[in-house]
Amino acid sequence: MVGHSEAIAELRDLLGERLSTGQSIRETHSHDEAYTTPVLPDAVAFPETTQEVSEIVKICAKHGCPIVPYGVGTSLEGHVVPIKGGLTLNMMRMNRVLDIHPDDLDAVVQPGVTRTELNEALRDTGLMFTVDPGADATMGGMAATRASGTNSVRYGTMRENVLALEVVTADGTIIRTGTRARKSSAGYDLTHLFVGSEGTLGIITELTVRLFGRPETMSAATCAFEQIDDAVQSVIVAIQSGLPMARIELIDEVQIRGLNAYNEAFDLPEMPHLFLEFHGSPNGVAEQVDLFRDIANDHNVIDFQWADMPEAHKKLWSARHNAYYAARAMRSGAVGVVTDVCVPISALAPCIAEAKARIAQAGLISPVVGHVGDGNFHLQILVDPKSTEEMAAAKNIANSLNELALKHSGTVTGEHGVGVGKLPYMAAEHGAALGVMAAIKRAMDPQNILNPGKVVPLN
Amino acid sequence: MVGHSEAIAELRDLLGERLSTGQSIRETHSHDEAYTTPVLPDAVAFPETTQEVSEIVKICAKHGCPIVPYGVGTSLEGHVVPIKGGLTLNMMRMNRVLDIHPDDLDAVVQPGVTRTELNEALRDTGLMFTVDPGADATMGGMAATRASGTNSVRYGTMRENVLALEVVTADGTIIRTGTRARKSSAGYDLTHLFVGSEGTLGIITELTVRLFGRPETMSAATCAFEQIDDAVQSVIVAIQSGLPMARIELIDEVQIRGLNAYNEAFDLPEMPHLFLEFHGSPNGVAEQVDLFRDIANDHNVIDFQWADMPEAHKKLWSARHNAYYAARAMRSGAVGVVTDVCVPISALAPCIAEAKARIAQAGLISPVVGHVGDGNFHLQILVDPKSTEEMAAAKNIANSLNELALKHSGTVTGEHGVGVGKLPYMAAEHGAALGVMAAIKRAMDPQNILNPGKVVPLN
Ligand SMILES: Cc1cc2nc3c(=O)[nH]c(=O)nc-3n(C[C@H](O)[C@H](O)[C@H](O)COP(=O)(O)OP(=O)(O)OC[C@H]3O[C@@H](n4cnc5c(N)ncnc54)[C@H](O)[C@@H]3O)c2cc1C
Ligand SMILES: Cc1cc2nc3c(=O)[nH]c(=O)nc-3n(C[C@H](O)[C@H](O)[C@H](O)COP(=O)(O)OP(=O)(O)OC[C@H]3O[C@@H](n4cnc5c(N)ncnc54)[C@H](O)[C@@H]3O)c2cc1C
Repeated sequence: MVGHSEAIAELRDLLGERLSTGQSIRETHSHDEAYTTPVLPDAVAFPETTQEVSEIVKICAKHGCPIVPYGVGTSLEGHVVPIKGGLTLNMMRMNRVLDIHPDDLDAVVQPGVTRTELNEALRDTGLMFTVDPGADATMGGMAATRASGTNSVRYGTMRENVLALEVVTADGTIIRTGTRARKSSAGYDLTHLFVGSEGTLGIITELTVRLFGRPETMSAATCAFEQIDDAVQSVIVAIQSGLPMARIELIDEVQIRGLNAYNEAFDLPEMPHLFLEFHGSPNGVAEQVDLFRDIANDHNVIDFQWADMPEAHKKLWSARHNAYYAARAMRSGAVGVVTDVCVPISALAPCIAEAKARIAQAGLISPVVGHVGDGNFHLQILVDPKSTEEMAAAKNIANSLNELALKHSGTVTGEHGVGVGKLPYMAAEHGAALGVMAAIKRAMDPQNILNPGKVVPLN
Repeated sequence: MVGHSEAIAELRDLLGERLSTGQSIRETHSHDEAYTTPVLPDAVAFPETTQEVSEIVKICAKHGCPIVPYGVGTSLEGHVVPIKGGLTLNMMRMNRVLDIHPDDLDAVVQPGVTRTELNEALRDTGLMFTVDPGADATMGGMAATRASGTNSVRYGTMRENVLALEVVTADGTIIRTGTRARKSSAGYDLTHLFVGSEGTLGIITELTVRLFGRPETMSAATCAFEQIDDAVQSVIVAIQSGLPMARIELIDEVQIRGLNAYNEAFDLPEMPHLFLEFHGSPNGVAEQVDLFRDIANDHNVIDFQWADMPEAHKKLWSARHNAYYAARAMRSGAVGVVTDVCVPISALAPCIAEAKARIAQAGLISPVVGHVGDGNFHLQILVDPKSTEEMAAAKNIANSLNELALKHSGTVTGEHGVGVGKLPYMAAEHGAALGVMAAIKRAMDPQNILNPGKVVPLN
């Protein structure tokens, strides 16, 4: 488009080699981990400073050229696909940890820093950043998707862990939302508005995030059950009794089979499992473990294995983190239709049971895993992308599960976000509130240049 | 104004006796607890249902008549003063606890329910609602001001404790924000946008809030120090070492004098104190107490008193909750110039020291109290409202403290909100972000009828 090529000519003057129109780079930025149809951006920019992001946005605004911010492209609903073309803004060169304030338990980082890079930088401080999606995502991408992880049941999601942001808005203005104070009543909560906005309201150029002290003791275990319902009921009781679990993850027998095959020297019985972690003082952890053991025993637990040696601990959680790839490897050539419902904890058991029943009925393979302490779980239905029948059956299951979650006062997406994949559910989930979201989008991005076509349908 | 009287005539048809234009009722609704100049509303409405609120808003919208939502009017910055006249919407008749979901640890309430009414309704459930501002405020008012309390250091403020809302927007549309799921990535976070919006973006007609299990053991204590800095340093070290304090409140020697005078059989040494509470299992609490005692001993604690009998426990916290009135009673006829800064915990000591020095310099009386675990503390400078000199001196102190908080990356209001009193600081605190807030206000309330003149200056 003419408008875009004018923008790109101006951007080239600004960025030189840090603007790429090469085919392979554009292809890399044409998709994320979802099976959404790829679309190539006209160009990819690699800004290095907030000021530069602001200038880029001003040029794009002048020409009405779309801008899609990009972290590392691990999102799962087509979030980063530039469906209207234009510019992809790859944030990887803004990857410095700017400040660590150990006394205030916070850190200031650029958006291209990944969660492991931040934790690496924290190594000698005794502090940790806790949000850990399976992928080694960027802080900007995680904030933009309101991501969560295995620790969120205890330490919160990005919603609770972002204190303040620096953002470039649709006209290139640089703003700061929030302060380093732990709470504030000073006006509208812009921080939470940008968290989860998937690049549609502004470009995040800096984040102030919460840190936690590393617990004195961490104890991890795996727990096997014959029946998945027993595993789920154990989770429900643990949460309802206020046990401060640091991690409580469900891995069903299908996913266990996948993990055993994918990870070297991994050999758990092919049964539904919970992967657990307890944080606290030595006595505190011992007390939690006893309480949880009682709960699990009440629910016919078969096997309790500790993974407390650093090696075993690492192996366990790295297996959990690569569950997605382990699942995909279970059926070669297959793609995964991924669901992400999150429901009130009391609705967890019926929703999981219904999902398992439908998968069986359809004769498909799908692991069930999830951050079940939050009421959140995923199917990853493995389908042959060339089989329209399988694809239809999988989407059918996903669809009925999403509807079930809404019926139980839950959400269709607990952590992955809307992108384009979940757009069709927004009306059912939000009703008239969707009109308010659209009004906000129009007010903050009147030209609709920031990741257009995502999150909120505009008409 | 003609517009308003037409609106009021139509409202009378709708509400009958539940619309009042009587002088004394209008006077009651002309002010809150701040020393802002009172303004009478043209009428006060007492709606009973969401549907009715929606119809009221539609009538007001048609005539461009301002609407000021009203809980119990305990806010401290002129929030509820109807500075442009119009209708005050008193929510007291919408005061039912609609649903308690013990299994999901949440409750659904109408906005006129007060925090003690909710806890009364929870009495037999083993659950508690934790946000406890000094006043027995309404849930709607607390959400609208993003209130916090003595427990927020452990259980969060209204920001963390509101899961979902029902809201009537400026054109009378009824929307729901959020679900009962614990987390979600489904679009813009409208819940957090309405929390803290002080009635300027919509009328809250229903809230879904988090509950917590009552801890097995609660242990409360008072701790006296010779030097206020030792008290503050103890707080800082406790927070930095991750001690999960349930409550940690600073009460300086001036406020102690006030409490001793105001509360029957209250007789603490006139020194800076910390009021503390520990929650957990019996062993867990014992461990926390030992750790805190070590910290306090390192900081020259003089006296450690337990208040574990139910009576003593109640007396302690009710004294803390009425600190505001106890302070006012210290100087008859005086009004309080109240500050509400909140800073990163490392900046707490210098800010408190500076505040105390300036009070002494000015020769004024002002207690210092606060939810110091959050980095939040208040002055309540007692001035003769007729002395322009004293008033100027007090505002001067407040002003320099606000500026100091901003310099330390803090906020001018940790919990009270903006109202009209803190409006002058919004530009300094938010800079260009204030433009985004104004754009949101304009988009969501294009006629500027919802609590006009508060939170965001519109030009
Ligand atoms: C194996 C695997 C496991 C996963 N596990 C989890 C999990 O446990 N929990 C979870 O929540 N998610 C999970 N995900 C999804 C994904 O990792 C998260 O959504 C993650 O937050 C995306 O980060 P990213 O850096 O890859 O962002 P991208 O995919 O590059 O971008 C995601 C969205 O954020 C926007 N964005 C990126 N950077 C910025 C910025 N600086 N400013 C504004 N907008 C920006 C993009 O425009 C896009 O809309 C998983 C994905 C995979 C592949
Ligand atoms: C003695 C004393 C102690 C206090 N201690 C604390 C404290 O510890 N922590 C703290 O945070 N605050 C404290 N405050 C301030 C005050 O109690 C809080 O701000 C409280 O949240 C106000 O609630 P309310 O019901 O009185 O609301 P109101 O004062 O009636 O209204 C407050 C604001 O909310 C809006 N509002 C009210 N209801 C609704 C609704 N349903 N929908 C939309 N908007 C609405 C109003 O328009 C107004 O802008 C204290 C005040 C006093 C007098």
